[in-house]
Amino acid sequence: MTTTEMYIDLTRRLSDITAIEESLGILQWDQEIVMPKGATAARGRQMATLAAILHQNVSSPALGGLLERLSAAGDLDELAQANVREANRDHQRAAKIPEDLVRQWTALTVQAHDVWVDARQATDFDLFRPTLERLVELAKRRAAAVDPNRAAYEVLIDEFEVGMSMARIDQVFAELKATLIPLIAQVRARFDRGGLPNTAWLQTHVAPQLQREVGEAMVRALGFDFDRGRLDTSVHPFCGGAGTDDVRITTRYKETAFLGSLSGMIHETGHALYEQGRNRGLGDQPVSRARSMGIHESQSLLWEKQVGQAAAFWQPHYPLLQSKYEFLANVPFDDFVFGLNLVDLQNFIRVDADELTYPLHVILRYEIERDLFADRLTVAEIPQAWNDKMQQYLGIVPPNAAQGCLQDVHWSGGSFGYFPSYTLGAVYAAQFMQSARLSVAVEATLSAGQIEPLLSWLRSHIHQHGSRFSTDELVTRATGRPLDTAPFLAYVTAKYERLYGL
Amino acid sequence: MTTTEMYIDLTRRLSDITAIEESLGILQWDQEIVMPKGATAARGRQMATLAAILHQNVSSPALGGLLERLSAAGDLDELAQANVREANRDHQRAAKIPEDLVRQWTALTVQAHDVWVDARQATDFDLFRPTLERLVELAKRRAAAVDPNRAAYEVLIDEFEVGMSMARIDQVFAELKATLIPLIAQVRARFDRGGLPNTAWLQTHVAPQLQREVGEAMVRALGFDFDRGRLDTSVHPFCGGAGTDDVRITTRYKETAFLGSLSGMIHETGHALYEQGRNRGLGDQPVSRARSMGIHESQSLLWEKQVGQAAAFWQPHYPLLQSKYEFLANVPFDDFVFGLNLVDLQNFIRVDADELTYPLHVILRYEIERDLFADRLTVAEIPQAWNDKMQQYLGIVPPNAAQGCLQDVHWSGGSFGYFPSYTLGAVYAAQFMQSARLSVAVEATLSAGQIEPLLSWLRSHIHQHGSRFSTDELVTRATGRPLDTAPFLAYVTAKYERLYGL
Repeated sequence: MTTTEMYIDLTRRLSDITAIEESLGILQWDQEIVMPKGATAARGRQMATLAAILHQNVSSPALGGLLERLSAAGDLDELAQANVREANRDHQRAAKIPEDLVRQWTALTVQAHDVWVDARQATDFDLFRPTLERLVELAKRRAAAVDPNRAAYEVLIDEFEVGMSMARIDQVFAELKATLIPLIAQVRARFDRGGLPNTAWLQTHVAPQLQREVGEAMVRALGFDFDRGRLDTSVHPFCGGAGTDDVRITTRYKETAFLGSLSGMIHETGHALYEQGRNRGLGDQPVSRARSMGIHESQSLLWEKQVGQAAAFWQPHYPLLQSKYEFLANVPFDDFVFGLNLVDLQNFIRVDADELTYPLHVILRYEIERDLFADRLTVAEIPQAWNDKMQQYLGIVPPNAAQGCLQDVHWSGGSFGYFPSYTLGAVYAAQFMQSARLSVAVEATLSAGQIEPLLSWLRSHIHQHGSRFSTDELVTRATGRPLDTAPFLAYVTAKYERLYGL
Repeated sequence: MTTTEMYIDLTRRLSDITAIEESLGILQWDQEIVMPKGATAARGRQMATLAAILHQNVSSPALGGLLERLSAAGDLDELAQANVREANRDHQRAAKIPEDLVRQWTALTVQAHDVWVDARQATDFDLFRPTLERLVELAKRRAAAVDPNRAAYEVLIDEFEVGMSMARIDQVFAELKATLIPLIAQVRARFDRGGLPNTAWLQTHVAPQLQREVGEAMVRALGFDFDRGRLDTSVHPFCGGAGTDDVRITTRYKETAFLGSLSGMIHETGHALYEQGRNRGLGDQPVSRARSMGIHESQSLLWEKQVGQAAAFWQPHYPLLQSKYEFLANVPFDDFVFGLNLVDLQNFIRVDADELTYPLHVILRYEIERDLFADRLTVAEIPQAWNDKMQQYLGIVPPNAAQGCLQDVHWSGGSFGYFPSYTLGAVYAAQFMQSARLSVAVEATLSAGQIEPLLSWLRSHIHQHGSRFSTDELVTRATGRPLDTAPFLAYVTAKYERLYGL
């Protein structure tokens, strides 16, 4: 076979693999959004079977042989080489995990979701504990299968953040703590002095139906393509679906926190814009996939925080919001912007957290996961460790497990090692925004109600590239340097000093 | 390996096969109910891949070898033998169809659904014609692959109605025509004489939301388990989903035909009760599957027509209906029952048809399909043939293709050979009802609002057996004889003579 023939054979195999992954995406969305409760066991069987078939396809020796020959071929163009590289990494990893473990893992995560929902509703960690212990045990077995010589947690992180080391995360998180903890202390002192704008309007009761109407209009205004996606309601907001042409975001509505659901929708729209902006011509090939979860979160956080909490963005949209939410008629624009960026020092919930405290929520989880997989912490000790760290980093202790260690969906889905991606994303977002400003008049265009200029910059510098480059190369091409906390720290420092008159 | 070891290996393989089928069920439901339009091509790719994987599994030589050895083993119990027999038939059939054809077929049916929806909306058969030609061509290739020595159409029918011959269907349909055509003529003459109850109330405008509320209450009253199923809205009503624990029915609401959607919901509930009544312990094995589509339709039609149009059933429910639909306050109960059973001699739509004209809608489709696959009719000639037969059997001609040959979803899904099952189902339903009366006081229990006695009879005589017996054996065990038109013809003759005073 010529290189071209081999490459065509490869793309067909990879297209099938993508189709199975996308089918699993639909089964998962279905489970969370529409599936009847009694179907949980059957769904576990269905997803375990598809996961096993996916694993058979990805780990197949025939695919491995093809990848080996194509990796050595000198006559592939750069995009094809990148496609081979991405597929080969997946293959190498999968080939090390026994199929039996894949089946157990998938069946367990499907059951675990329901157990977690029930435990959270009952605010009882002990209901979830045995399941979580089993999840951690299987995750350790996965990690050991992939690379017994590397720390288990780092192997797990690699699934979401290829090439990222714990040492580098430790360094980044140390830099963040060094700036954020004193900055939060300054904000706390400022609150104690009083005289800040009134934000009681944030708790105004707004019917979910009206929230949905306003949120959907905003999602649309940001450029989400409803012909290639959906917006639904779920227990835990997520962006899922089945590839670039079927991107499904979800939200939840809290009647006394309308901004929470609005910013949540903007966050998921950021993810969705990345997915919808992928290279559609290669939509069934690994090279078109999102680069990493850190880059994914950079897109959600860029829109949610850097754009969605900026005065410039709201200038053209605030009158619309006031027309829908009558109580805003008496809220001056500056107070609204202050409210958007309110640092809530009593908040226990990561997804509701502001820019300043959010990284500490993540660092807490990172440290717990790191210690769990290094056998320095048991599952039974998590609630206490959680509360201790909440006290240490944020000075508050959640009243129950539902607002503490049961609040996130991640562990029930087996996504250990995902949390760092959120804060890496916030750091990347600030880097991207700083660079975008060099060629896009961000404030001027947002003030004029134009989303397109900023979105175009992201499309051409991030979305279109998918996994063509390594994370470091992608970020360096877009911003001139790899991961760097300086833009994020400069941004939050300037912003919160200004808002709070520090 | 011992027989037991081989059988355990078999059940694992069959469980995987069922899981893939059920996953396809979810992808299909998703496509019709919630999928964004722009995802059609991607969904085609996903379903074609899963269909190919399903085909690989069902046709696998390893499975074939196992089935061969187990078919010859003397020490399996009767239920296991039946499971092997059902699996073996699927295997033998699949092994004859090339995978490439399976992929083409699936991808085409996914695209065809959208083409059909558009053509039907545009009332333009020519928009659908090239796609339908391709569907017929591929269906012929499938049939020829399975059995080149048998009439293509009979091979296709076999997918829905195992063991049924065209000769037997011709015989049954001839018997029906011989009774129904003169009976309809009598009804027509009775209409011409006038003085029948006023049925103008049937067209009263009822908001879809209210129809849904009433319909859902009725679906629940009939015993549909919402913990193991859903009710949604779709272009064409269907019962789908993913196995006995995830049964999904759909309906559509026409604002000026509330009884149509209500009876449609009862129809789909009949299908759902069959699925939910399968042997759950064997839910992932072929032996638990519905016996045939004719038996499936017997369950939907038994509830829709024999029960849902009976005075006894409505006696306890009519006051509830009157409380929801105010305009029924002035409709006497007898007039309501007359309206439920109204023979609409101007109706073009199969799913809206009454018991007397429905079989003629089916016979028309059967004859067109039969001639199409025998090359006595081309796709381009279908609209004319359709209208000619409508004129011949029912004395009316549809004003456009949307109300004629574009009305049904079946051809877009490639379900050639399905239509006869509806009318075989009506015949079986009358047989079952006649036998159920021997042990259940049907009228007395329904009049008392009790569904359980009749449902229990169906559970134990039909649902629980799945595919354990051949169709003829199942029907003979339940009714003392195989397929027989006499009970159906006696039932409709008596009923319509009484209603119309013939």
